[in-house]
Amino acid sequence: MRDQYYEQLDAIVDDLVNLTGTVRRAVADATKALLEADAQIAESVIAGDKDIDEATEIIEERALLLLATQQPVATDLRQLVATLRMLTDLQRMGDLSVHVAKVARRRMPDSAVPEHLHPTITAMAAVADSMIDSASRIVADRNVDAAGQLENEDDEMDRLRKDLLRSLLGDSWTYGVEPAVDLALLGRYYERIGDHAVSMARRVVYLVTGQLS
Amino acid sequence: MRDQYYEQLDAIVDDLVNLTGTVRRAVADATKALLEADAQIAESVIAGDKDIDEATEIIEERALLLLATQQPVATDLRQLVATLRMLTDLQRMGDLSVHVAKVARRRMPDSAVPEHLHPTITAMAAVADSMIDSASRIVADRNVDAAGQLENEDDEMDRLRKDLLRSLLGDSWTYGVEPAVDLALLGRYYERIGDHAVSMARRVVYLVTGQLS
Repeated sequence: MRDQYYEQLDAIVDDLVNLTGTVRRAVADATKALLEADAQIAESVIAGDKDIDEATEIIEERALLLLATQQPVATDLRQLVATLRMLTDLQRMGDLSVHVAKVARRRMPDSAVPEHLHPTITAMAAVADSMIDSASRIVADRNVDAAGQLENEDDEMDRLRKDLLRSLLGDSWTYGVEPAVDLALLGRYYERIGDHAVSMARRVVYLVTGQLS
Repeated sequence: MRDQYYEQLDAIVDDLVNLTGTVRRAVADATKALLEADAQIAESVIAGDKDIDEATEIIEERALLLLATQQPVATDLRQLVATLRMLTDLQRMGDLSVHVAKVARRRMPDSAVPEHLHPTITAMAAVADSMIDSASRIVADRNVDAAGQLENEDDEMDRLRKDLLRSLLGDSWTYGVEPAVDLALLGRYYERIGDHAVSMARRVVYLVTGQLS
């Protein structure tokens, strides 16, 4: 009975880790659509979100079924509850990718990001990608030591977002209000993607160490 | 045993509904701090967030304990899981109030909102307040009929946010980039507060009807 429980739990965690890969691609594609003003990629990110939602719901149903049929307690219970919450994090990261893709789409055929800010957005997307990857490995291996690095990456994300805001608000900003509004929101979306990765990692840390970080 | 279960579940739901009241006050106070540039109120919202976090954690622990000791199945299980998720919604609404209060604080002694946009922000805050109130009553009474009104309020929130963005991007905008960036983010924060209220209501609707709206 217990062996079967862990087998099913492992399968659920595997699927969650796979979904993390899908979300990573959504973030990367949304960024590509944004920087290259590529309408086709933007549409594919927007349309693809329903796959992330569906995958989330399927994994969620299986977790609830396992909860109901095997009635885990203590750490096993906490792990299943943590899994349900991480699914919410992943779903939100998918939604945020759609927001990025929609900003991209609204400004086509131009890019919503002025050329000199491409490196900043590229860096934010790279940090987000690395953060989701770290979170995914922390979930897969329950390696809480890797969580420290993720907090560093989160600091880097904050730094990049502040740089971005400083650019928009500096005297050398000559693009007017509309691109500034887009970029302020884009900065917020990437920051939130990173926050959700941190939130996933913290749930694992809490499971393993019993400490809220 | 079952009676005791429902008694404990009712107590948890009561506490969740009470917490909803605290979150409503945080949103209202943050708005007051923003429009009146009141530093003291802004600080109290920022400091008060840890109370919301602590209350969330206490209710969460009790829900997990009930889950572990009484091992509910079927609808009872789903209701407890829904409760855990609604706690996450409430915690996020608290965080978003802090974001509003921090924008207010950053622009003091001025208000971050130009006078002619006070009515729009006041309206967004009023809709958010009414949405949290609706969500709270839907949770307390499991009255799914009220959920329809909440979706209307959500449409109203979207409309207000679009109005706000149009103001920022119109030719008559003479305040420059910085207030526009603040207002774009503020609009996003109020919209997200409303989204979390909708998310709470949808969880109740799903529990009662078994239908994802």
